[in-house]
Amino acid sequence: MGYVRGLRCRACGAEFPAVQLAVCESCFGPLEVTYELSAVRDSFRRADLAERPRDLWRYRELLPVLDESARVDLAVGCTPLRRAADLGEALDVREIWVKDDTVNPTYSFKDRPVAVAVAKAREWDLPAIGCASTGNLAAATAAAAAKAHLPCYVFAPASLEPAKLLVPRIFGATVVPIEGTYDDANRIALLTADRRGWGFVNINLRPYYAEGSKTLLFETWEQLGFELPDVIVVPLGSGLLLTSLEKGFRELRELGEVADPPRLVGTQAAGCAPIVQGFESPDGRPKPVRRPETVAESLAIGDPGSGFEAIQAMRATRGFADAPNDPDILDGVRLLARAEGVFTEPAGGTTVATLRRAREDGRIDRDERVVLLITGSGLKTPAVWRDAFQPLAPVPPNSAAVDAYLGGLHHG
Amino acid sequence: MGYVRGLRCRACGAEFPAVQLAVCESCFGPLEVTYELSAVRDSFRRADLAERPRDLWRYRELLPVLDESARVDLAVGCTPLRRAADLGEALDVREIWVKDDTVNPTYSFKDRPVAVAVAKAREWDLPAIGCASTGNLAAATAAAAAKAHLPCYVFAPASLEPAKLLVPRIFGATVVPIEGTYDDANRIALLTADRRGWGFVNINLRPYYAEGSKTLLFETWEQLGFELPDVIVVPLGSGLLLTSLEKGFRELRELGEVADPPRLVGTQAAGCAPIVQGFESPDGRPKPVRRPETVAESLAIGDPGSGFEAIQAMRATRGFADAPNDPDILDGVRLLARAEGVFTEPAGGTTVATLRRAREDGRIDRDERVVLLITGSGLKTPAVWRDAFQPLAPVPPNSAAVDAYLGGLHHG
Repeated sequence: MGYVRGLRCRACGAEFPAVQLAVCESCFGPLEVTYELSAVRDSFRRADLAERPRDLWRYRELLPVLDESARVDLAVGCTPLRRAADLGEALDVREIWVKDDTVNPTYSFKDRPVAVAVAKAREWDLPAIGCASTGNLAAATAAAAAKAHLPCYVFAPASLEPAKLLVPRIFGATVVPIEGTYDDANRIALLTADRRGWGFVNINLRPYYAEGSKTLLFETWEQLGFELPDVIVVPLGSGLLLTSLEKGFRELRELGEVADPPRLVGTQAAGCAPIVQGFESPDGRPKPVRRPETVAESLAIGDPGSGFEAIQAMRATRGFADAPNDPDILDGVRLLARAEGVFTEPAGGTTVATLRRAREDGRIDRDERVVLLITGSGLKTPAVWRDAFQPLAPVPPNSAAVDAYLGGLHHG
Repeated sequence: MGYVRGLRCRACGAEFPAVQLAVCESCFGPLEVTYELSAVRDSFRRADLAERPRDLWRYRELLPVLDESARVDLAVGCTPLRRAADLGEALDVREIWVKDDTVNPTYSFKDRPVAVAVAKAREWDLPAIGCASTGNLAAATAAAAAKAHLPCYVFAPASLEPAKLLVPRIFGATVVPIEGTYDDANRIALLTADRRGWGFVNINLRPYYAEGSKTLLFETWEQLGFELPDVIVVPLGSGLLLTSLEKGFRELRELGEVADPPRLVGTQAAGCAPIVQGFESPDGRPKPVRRPETVAESLAIGDPGSGFEAIQAMRATRGFADAPNDPDILDGVRLLARAEGVFTEPAGGTTVATLRRAREDGRIDRDERVVLLITGSGLKTPAVWRDAFQPLAPVPPNSAAVDAYLGGLHHG
């Protein structure tokens, strides 16, 4: 029963049953879950959505989890879509919306794919779960594992901001801090998961994991009154978020719910832009980066697993790819905070910076309706502000001292 | 028009119109907002709630903001009420619910009272807003001020965890880091607000500010199918959260919606327990603490403004007050994280620790339905974990090193 048909290779089209499989057995291409869309069509109706639970499972026909009891209930998804009028004015865009995933349970969009992957791990009775992470995924996986009573192993670069390695430990996960980059951590995580039979959410559960992220597209569509925006600006790490959105679009189109795709605009940091460089090259292949250097830690993936497909998706939707530098990224964070009261991690700042640049050179039009995906909270990355916000000298608790302090400020 | 009748002094009963007034002009007692409950009764119907916006304004008849355009739209409230089955098992309580305000826009319940206070400041066209804060309130006020285009001044102890002083600065607020305790910061903030005509949310907008917090009680009631729990465990800083909940209960009772109050159980840290000590003393007056010393920074208020009223409310509802020590508080945080996947700041750990102690000595019964208010996120307080979670030594990215690392662990 259920709506899942199986797995299909994006590269060679080979089909497989919906089992635990990381990549295509014929060509090592990326797999995606397919659905019996005629069955979905019978059950998934706009009018019923209002009655459904306010979490990502409201789109259950298009998520590959059959067994409801396998779900971990952390109230993931259904985050605000905020009309950003002041930001629009600042960037000369008539209509900007901020899809705010900073208020998911562990403060990033990663709670979405993890919800699906951990449910599959429970369906298949795997003995442990884990992930390779630049930080956000570690927190999401560890929280879900705690709630699911599963041991959890997090592989992450040892150099991450300390708070990002603390959170999974609080949730009881075992953190393996790898000497090296994210790509080093990813490679050894893959080996370890294979050897021990563990389910690593973004590795050997990847086709299922990817399905969670497309709920960002479904929610945006629903929150805009069942319309898609003209443009979605998407941070790119591995590229999987963008390809998941594109898959979500295709499903809505096959269901007859929408016609044209939003332009998918990918953004990376200049200090680690393998997908952007690939987008700009004739062969459309990502150009791996050996030593990522950027404040946007959560995007610092030098060898992006879904980079090629992300480039195809951007091209197919008439989008583009862009890579602002670190100062512009941090300016983007501050602008969003001051205009809208939303404090994002640098990855969210890249979307603001890219929109600004695209308005300046005309790649995005003033009249296009734009959605920025704000995928994680700024609370996890305080260290990037060390230079911009130096410690303040204490002020004695009397009026003269306070007046002198306030009078001496440039702002306020 | 509207539902507000005016202000009334909790101490002497004097009545005032609903103007900007910090305390009773006759006796300096605390003021609370009163409503025309017959008018509220005509408009506020359970059946209509499902249709209303999913934020704290769904209870608009019982919030003192007349002008809808004065509201700042940050999507505050309607946070999850999580059934905490595993925590219940660990603490031998049949039914525990966690009211999770860690996923408010700035990650604490303070977004609620600030939403109301800032709307009043806009109604009254005040030139600037601010607060005295132990950290959470600073972030909430600064975010709302940014969205409202109002200058914002945050007075806080200079010794707070650095991340807590960073966040309001990102939002563009002016932080005044006061040499001394929260009580020192509070006193000089009061003076400054008075002299400059600024609206300080928890000082000269306090009666309105207090109204936002009671939405925690309304939501809990609605989420439990229009029933109140038997017990609510409430962190105590100034005591105002607890008195606001009690006021919310009285309003629901006067509307005929509920009969008996929940037992209100207040919890502070042993290192700063002026309200708990007052609860245990015959005169029921808080016993000020000069030098608070606790990891629960957000509760470190030595001279609590609403302490006396909080003690009265706990006594009136057959509740009690308790003050666990820091190790028990941190154990409470870890237990909640590992059982439910929710990472709270230490204030949330005090509620878990108090429930544990109250089960041990029988002050709370196994069969009572208990709600824990988890009022803020653990992401803001990483420094309290410095000793418990030492930095991990990096592991080289090869299988032998990973095997040695995993084999050498006590857990996992």
